[in-house]
Order: sequence, then structure tokens, then C-alpha cells
Amino acid sequence: MAKQIRLAQRVVAESDRLADELVQRFRKARVFVANLMSSPGSGKTSLLEETARRLGKELRMAVIEGDLATDRDAQRIQRAGIPSCQINTGGGCHLSARQILDALERFNLADLDVLFIENVGNLVCPAEFDLGEHRRVVLASTPEGDDKPVKYPIAFHKADCVVLNKIDLLAATDFSREAFLKYVKGLNPKVPVLELSCRTGEGVDQWLDWVRAQRKAAAKGPMKSRK
Amino acid sequence: MAKQIRLAQRVVAESDRLADELVQRFRKARVFVANLMSSPGSGKTSLLEETARRLGKELRMAVIEGDLATDRDAQRIQRAGIPSCQINTGGGCHLSARQILDALERFNLADLDVLFIENVGNLVCPAEFDLGEHRRVVLASTPEGDDKPVKYPIAFHKADCVVLNKIDLLAATDFSREAFLKYVKGLNPKVPVLELSCRTGEGVDQWLDWVRAQRKAAAKGPMKSRK
Repeated sequence: MAKQIRLAQRVVAESDRLADELVQRFRKARVFVANLMSSPGSGKTSLLEETARRLGKELRMAVIEGDLATDRDAQRIQRAGIPSCQINTGGGCHLSARQILDALERFNLADLDVLFIENVGNLVCPAEFDLGEHRRVVLASTPEGDDKPVKYPIAFHKADCVVLNKIDLLAATDFSREAFLKYVKGLNPKVPVLELSCRTGEGVDQWLDWVRAQRKAAAKGPMKSRK
Repeated sequence: MAKQIRLAQRVVAESDRLADELVQRFRKARVFVANLMSSPGSGKTSLLEETARRLGKELRMAVIEGDLATDRDAQRIQRAGIPSCQINTGGGCHLSARQILDALERFNLADLDVLFIENVGNLVCPAEFDLGEHRRVVLASTPEGDDKPVKYPIAFHKADCVVLNKIDLLAATDFSREAFLKYVKGLNPKVPVLELSCRTGEGVDQWLDWVRAQRKAAAKGPMKSRK
């Protein structure tokens, strides 16, 4: 068991070293980087499609897509008008710093204002892995139920921004907005919670404003240290 | 790296040994065991609540609940009238055979007809771990989108039964039933797909019939080997 622990420690140390390398790369290029996490189907790709369509002329953006299989999401992003590259993890349950470093070969970072990383759909494992991002965005959606923050506390505790998607389905579900906000604030008192619907477009403006503000901060120089 | 691989092989071998021990325990007790997997919020607990309410007088059932945190799901099941026990994994992304063996201490297996294991909400990692179950049930729900089978192929490929929940929300989403069924059948041609809504009760009868049939087969003796 001691051997297993030592090996695990070595793997973690290597992963942290690569994440630090990413931090330096992003800082040098003055590109704002957000790592998006959620359950499968909460609407990460839909939010990025909306962002591409609405901010694509104002900011130079790109997306790294993480999925077990298929390049469907990268294709959706490209159709929305911005560059994207797909990482297929095989069975892998999260993106690693190594995979992001390899994907960067396919972008000229200096030509970008914003880089989004769409992690594998999984509310557990991605929360444990630092990808050198400035901000972590956790999405939830109303049909998933209002108790997800307390049931998946690590992701919500570490979030810099929580997006509640599919508010157009509120009336059709048993979701309690009040309960959800209470659970989020209990784990992460200061985190902004942006309520929106990628389907109707309601509330998406707040998200665009959040991206603009974060990007401005990153362009000015080193941002406040990540969690 | 060779050392890491050898250690990983040893861990997998131990996990398989414990799963085999579970197979023997379940076989001896003639209890039918189903392992339920899905994304967070697809409706695993809701389906088990409905099952408890509708089958609780006909079959002796119990539920082992897996969650990172809280005992909310175990409480919901108990309120629906059947015994349950909660496993909290801390940060763990799936249930292990070791955890199930420990949980069995809290039931008298010989007094049960059916044992449900509700895995951690995660469409990736639980698919890799054998818990000695007779059948694997994978749930999806319409608001998650119709492309989930191709994006999370391992879980759907290994499923013995696919439940499509929240069909009451079909009209409010962009979900294509035809696309979903095509994707599932492409990965797993013979798997039954049960379309239902735990909220309205529509289609739940087919699920109860499936449970009854599986339980009958398990009571008769060894079932066809698992995938």
C-alpha cells in the first residue's frame, strides 16, 4: 500500500507541474481560460454555441472539447463560428493537464482572447484536476433537480461561477430555485449564480458580461490565484 | 511505469475477486440484484421510489444507495416504504465491490427477493466496475439530449436494460426519440429500452414487469452470465 501511495503522489506531483506550465502559458499569452464542468447534458456545448454566436465578433475565442468519444461537440462549436479541437479520452473520465498541453499545439494562443475548455460530462472527477484555468464554471440544469450541489459538493465548492441552465423548464419540473441557491451558497457563499436558458436565450447576457469582465481582468495581468 | 501497471493489475484482480464473492453471495440467497447507473439527476432514485411504492407488497426489496455525500436518497427510499442503506464515497466516483460487501452486513440477504444498487451519479466510471450484479440498468432522461449513448458508449454498450425517463418533457426539449433509439441499438442491438416518466407514472408498468421477470429468473437458479 505504501508503494501505491508513493506512486499516486508522484502522479499528482507531475499533474500539478503540468498545470503550472499551463498557468504560465496562459499568462504569457494573456488569454482568459475557463474550465466548464457539469453532468452530461446540462448544456455546456449549448452555452458555448450561444457564446460563439453572440461574442464571436467581439472576442477571439476557441474551445477545447473533451469527450469519451465522437467529435460532435467540436463540430457544433465550429458550426457556431469559432475554432475548436476535440480530445477523445477513450474511457477517461476527465481531461488532464497533459491533454490540454498537447491540444495547445493546435492553436496560436497569442491570437486568442478567451479559451474555453469543455470538460468530460461528469460532476465528480473533473473537479479534482487542475488544468491551469483562471476560472472554473460549473453548470447545472433544472431537470437534474435542486439537490445536486449537496450531492456533488466538491465541484460546487470549487466553482468560480455557477450557471443554472434550462430555466425555461422550471415550471415543468419539481425544481426549487430557492433550495438550489441555498445549497450553493452553503458550500460557496460568494460564487455568482447565473440563471439562464440556452434554448430561449433568457439570461444569457449576464453570462456574456461575466466572460467580458473575466477576460478584461486576465488581459491586465495575473489574476487572483485560483482555488 | 511498469510498476504502476503491475500495481494497477493487482488492484483490478482484487476488485474482480470481491465481485466474484458477491456473485456467490447473491446466488446463494437467490436474490436478484440490479446495478443502476446514470448521470446525476436522470431519475434513479425516483424510479426506485416508484418501484418501492408499487411493488413493495409483492416483492421483498432493499436498496443500497451510493453518493459522494448526504443520505438524502436513502431517506427518500425509506419514506417510500422499503429498507435502504447509504454509502458515502467522499470524493469517490463509483461504488466498489468492497463497499457493497460491507453494506451487505446491514441486510439479511436471504429475506430479500430483489436488491437494487443505486450507483454514484456518473455515466463514466461506474460502468468500469463489476459489483456482482445480475443486470446493469442504465438510465437516461430526455432533457439530457438524444446523443448521450454515442458520447458515453461504454455504459450503454454494457447495459442489460436502458430506461429512458422524463418522457413527459419530450415536447419541451429538442430530444429525438428516433435518434436516441438508433444510437442505443448501434451500441447494443438487443437491449430493451423502456420509455417512461417517473413523474406522471406513464410507462412504469413495463419496468415493473421487467423487474418481475428478472427476479423470477434469478430465483430459479444461476442466470446467464453477465457482460
